Amino acid sequence: MDLGKYRFYSEAARGLKKPELVLKGAYVFMAHSGEFVQGDVAVADGIVLGVGSYSGEKEIDLTGKYLCPGFIDSHLHLESTLVTPGELIRQAAGCGTTTFIVDPHESANVSGSEGIDYILKQTEEVPANVFVMVPSCVPATHVDDNGCILTAGKMKAYLDCPRILGLGEVMDAVSVISGSVSMHEKLALFEGRVRDGHAPFLNSGDLAAYALAGISTDHECVDYEYAMAECRNGMYVLIREGSAARNLDAIIRGLVSRHTDTSFFCFCTDDKHIEEIRREGHINYNVKRAVQLGLPVEKALKMATIQAAQCYGLKHLGAVAPGYQADFVVLDNLADLNVLEVYHKGRLIRADEKKEIPPCPPALKNTVHLQHFTQDHLRLPHRGGKAHVLRMIEGQIATEDLMEEVPCSKTEGDLLFAPGDGYLKIAAVERHKGTGKTGVGIVKGFGIRGGAIASSVSHDSHNLIVIGDNDRDMYLAVQELVRSQGGYTITENGKVYETLPLPVMGLMSDAGYEEVNRVLKKMIAKAHEMGIPEGFDPFITLSFMALPVIPEIRITPRGVYLVKEDRLLETPFEK
Amino acid sequence: MDLGKYRFYSEAARGLKKPELVLKGAYVFMAHSGEFVQGDVAVADGIVLGVGSYSGEKEIDLTGKYLCPGFIDSHLHLESTLVTPGELIRQAAGCGTTTFIVDPHESANVSGSEGIDYILKQTEEVPANVFVMVPSCVPATHVDDNGCILTAGKMKAYLDCPRILGLGEVMDAVSVISGSVSMHEKLALFEGRVRDGHAPFLNSGDLAAYALAGISTDHECVDYEYAMAECRNGMYVLIREGSAARNLDAIIRGLVSRHTDTSFFCFCTDDKHIEEIRREGHINYNVKRAVQLGLPVEKALKMATIQAAQCYGLKHLGAVAPGYQADFVVLDNLADLNVLEVYHKGRLIRADEKKEIPPCPPALKNTVHLQHFTQDHLRLPHRGGKAHVLRMIEGQIATEDLMEEVPCSKTEGDLLFAPGDGYLKIAAVERHKGTGKTGVGIVKGFGIRGGAIASSVSHDSHNLIVIGDNDRDMYLAVQELVRSQGGYTITENGKVYETLPLPVMGLMSDAGYEEVNRVLKKMIAKAHEMGIPEGFDPFITLSFMALPVIPEIRITPRGVYLVKEDRLLETPFEK
Repeated sequence: MDLGKYRFYSEAARGLKKPELVLKGAYVFMAHSGEFVQGDVAVADGIVLGVGSYSGEKEIDLTGKYLCPGFIDSHLHLESTLVTPGELIRQAAGCGTTTFIVDPHESANVSGSEGIDYILKQTEEVPANVFVMVPSCVPATHVDDNGCILTAGKMKAYLDCPRILGLGEVMDAVSVISGSVSMHEKLALFEGRVRDGHAPFLNSGDLAAYALAGISTDHECVDYEYAMAECRNGMYVLIREGSAARNLDAIIRGLVSRHTDTSFFCFCTDDKHIEEIRREGHINYNVKRAVQLGLPVEKALKMATIQAAQCYGLKHLGAVAPGYQADFVVLDNLADLNVLEVYHKGRLIRADEKKEIPPCPPALKNTVHLQHFTQDHLRLPHRGGKAHVLRMIEGQIATEDLMEEVPCSKTEGDLLFAPGDGYLKIAAVERHKGTGKTGVGIVKGFGIRGGAIASSVSHDSHNLIVIGDNDRDMYLAVQELVRSQGGYTITENGKVYETLPLPVMGLMSDAGYEEVNRVLKKMIAKAHEMGIPEGFDPFITLSFMALPVIPEIRITPRGVYLVKEDRLLETPFEK
Repeated sequence: MDLGKYRFYSEAARGLKKPELVLKGAYVFMAHSGEFVQGDVAVADGIVLGVGSYSGEKEIDLTGKYLCPGFIDSHLHLESTLVTPGELIRQAAGCGTTTFIVDPHESANVSGSEGIDYILKQTEEVPANVFVMVPSCVPATHVDDNGCILTAGKMKAYLDCPRILGLGEVMDAVSVISGSVSMHEKLALFEGRVRDGHAPFLNSGDLAAYALAGISTDHECVDYEYAMAECRNGMYVLIREGSAARNLDAIIRGLVSRHTDTSFFCFCTDDKHIEEIRREGHINYNVKRAVQLGLPVEKALKMATIQAAQCYGLKHLGAVAPGYQADFVVLDNLADLNVLEVYHKGRLIRADEKKEIPPCPPALKNTVHLQHFTQDHLRLPHRGGKAHVLRMIEGQIATEDLMEEVPCSKTEGDLLFAPGDGYLKIAAVERHKGTGKTGVGIVKGFGIRGGAIASSVSHDSHNLIVIGDNDRDMYLAVQELVRSQGGYTITENGKVYETLPLPVMGLMSDAGYEEVNRVLKKMIAKAHEMGIPEGFDPFITLSFMALPVIPEIRITPRGVYLVKEDRLLETPFEK
């Protein structure tokens, strides 16, 4: 700290000089001691000078309100929100999240280092603190066909960047545990920094081996028992409440009913659509929901603030105390927990404030490349007997691998799988290098009739993924995504119903969240109308059907993938 | 981590290979989740591989016992124990303390960098983890006459040493708050590392200004209210239970009665004699006492382990979890909390095990230099009226500044202060550079009759300090300490009763703790017999009477010092 400045801060902290801003009379949440204390918060140059009795050049009366440190989203992918990073951050910041620990692995899977640089550049001037974890698994596994390979060598370039905190979620648990050289090169590169985990459903020995490699967080945990297993292994549990994966209720209920020590728990969203952020909230929703479930508000607030800061070694964030950054959320009361105002570095964040967004490099807007792809690629011969069926589970990103008899039809002398009776066709089409690779499988739980839905957002390789009950609409949907250079689309009876273009790497729109919300709302309603059950977001759920690091079964451009067995099948029929 | 080793660890963690050691069946304290879970702890190469169900090459049955992470003393001065560092650490390690955060400022005040190097060298091969904070205040204040000045320039040499964690307790709060250049140079040097505090009795504004400077711990706190004030300011409170300062009861009682969140509290000893460590224990005593006062044992254990590790950024210590260092304390039960066994890096610590101790450089054994010092230096003319009297407070290192009428006598025509009626003479004699500087004052609360006690351990400048009821015995005591090149001594009726030589910098004995204990016990008994009240350790209490950073009044070689007013008086008589 500059000594001249310190001298002024010290005098202001001691009441000898007036600081530029004093927020007066709120009940201030003291994150270190976990209690509320009424007082004035003195601020200068975006730093808290003290909490006590102060008068300032400018004073804002917050008597009777509750002032907390800005919330921290301990793990998220900005791309999943469909809008450009600056757009998302402005919205989420309005909900009180002032710090984002971002893993740009969607961008990296499409565009490699250029994708990461895009995220860094886009978040330079936003009204929030954005830190980046370098994606560890690009591609996610050896069965993926993605756009770029990010080696330890390429990662090195990021080590000196002050906004890089560590290594992004290490999804390839098998490589970690078996001691793969390339994986451990990456782990070694980030020795002494935070290495984020992604460790769903590991057994006790595997989890210990995974933690032994130096991985210290996980956000994939879906129940209390596994959360405790991770915590005992020394990992921070980042309780996730996103659009597709909603794990908060199960974990918080366990913590509340057993009065568990929550010091190593934080909150994250992982993947949450802008539309849901607008409707429901962001980390403030995690806090609110946890409190509704009976968690003491002080504990919930610590998860959203100081504990996340401790987890990521952010010594200047997560508390309202001398020397901490002046990031605040003002709440109306402790029952409703409505966000009234948000401050970043001592400045009130205004919803209507627009900043110049750095432009997107042209190469990042031209990333959907198909060659030699025809409707024939979508044919699925029926071989008789049972087939592996990918059953989607509502509210989870895990899937179930069913072995079932599926309908069949005879077309031009060939026995083919025929969508119907709840069984649909699902296909993944490689889109980065025009290899023409297409995997076709059978899915249950989507229930769309008379059409198809498709997306270029498809974790983590972001190939094209399409589900439908007929090949013509599925083929049309793929063609439409090539035309729009990425996006979401719905086709029906041979026509494109609607497309949400996502031209930035095929992942994000640059048309603004209002337009995204408008189109998305219409498309989601249509999808439900076409038979997709209410209760889940069809596009987000679709986007996880190709992710080969989550059990039990996935579709990839190379075919059907059985996660636990690490086995790739050209066809879902085992016979 | 070496990949070859990791592969073995991973296989052992998964039960595919046998680890070298398994501690079986204990209730293991899970520091992250704050609970006990019964299980086997697998260990290899001094690292925990996992807690679960394991068999190993060697197995130790701990069924029914309690296995905790090794305890952490978050702040201590090894020199205060009177024995050489290795000696102390072996004793304290036997009590379960396996990590020591050491501030060698006593050594630095006498011998500068050579003193710090001595502490580093002596603790290289001990069965514990010893980390060092670079002393920040050598000398402690501008009124001190010590042996060496440690500038920011000299401190730089320590920045790259892996066992140096940060900056030692910053005692000169005035320099911090006023923005002194030399103090802030030191603070800046350790930016991003831990900077320990020493902040007794600061008012709310001063405390905020102090914390603003980046200081994040304090161990000087004596009551609950101040502890909470520090915690709210973002500081870790290191609850001290030493020989002279016993602050645990007051703070823990407050925490218990108010059900306070204790996540930012740790334990320390600061200054504790080896004899008391042997009798009462070390950090295990802090834990035990806290539990007796009603603190849940899980919270007490977290203070002694993971929280201290978090405070100092020691990511491999403070828990029994994969990848953590295998430092354990085995306890008999949760009521008595007796230490049965202690492990460091997976090895059982044996009390009888002696290691070669590196020799002490000769210059460090020749540090008591007096010239031109005569008995006349101890004369204290009585000027009539009231005088400042230094009142010692039992169980505290703070003192009270009384203005009282004191006895007087006429000797050879001069009116002199005459010890009696509870008033004794106290003197501080400069011993580093033979300047002959001698300050003489009046003390109350010691009550010695017919003799004197003296010490070369006298925080923090470690000049000679002597208290007595007659000049002859006081002079003799000073002469005796020159002869022994430092130590504790008692004189009586013109004769030396006994001396404990402390030849290493005038601070430590190299004769072993048995000899130190034997002589010390005898001397303490004698001191009480001569009139010093029971209930406090006369030598430790004496050693704080010259420390000019603790209110209210001190004796220094330059005279009586009033701490709060920062005022030096040549004589205690104000008239």
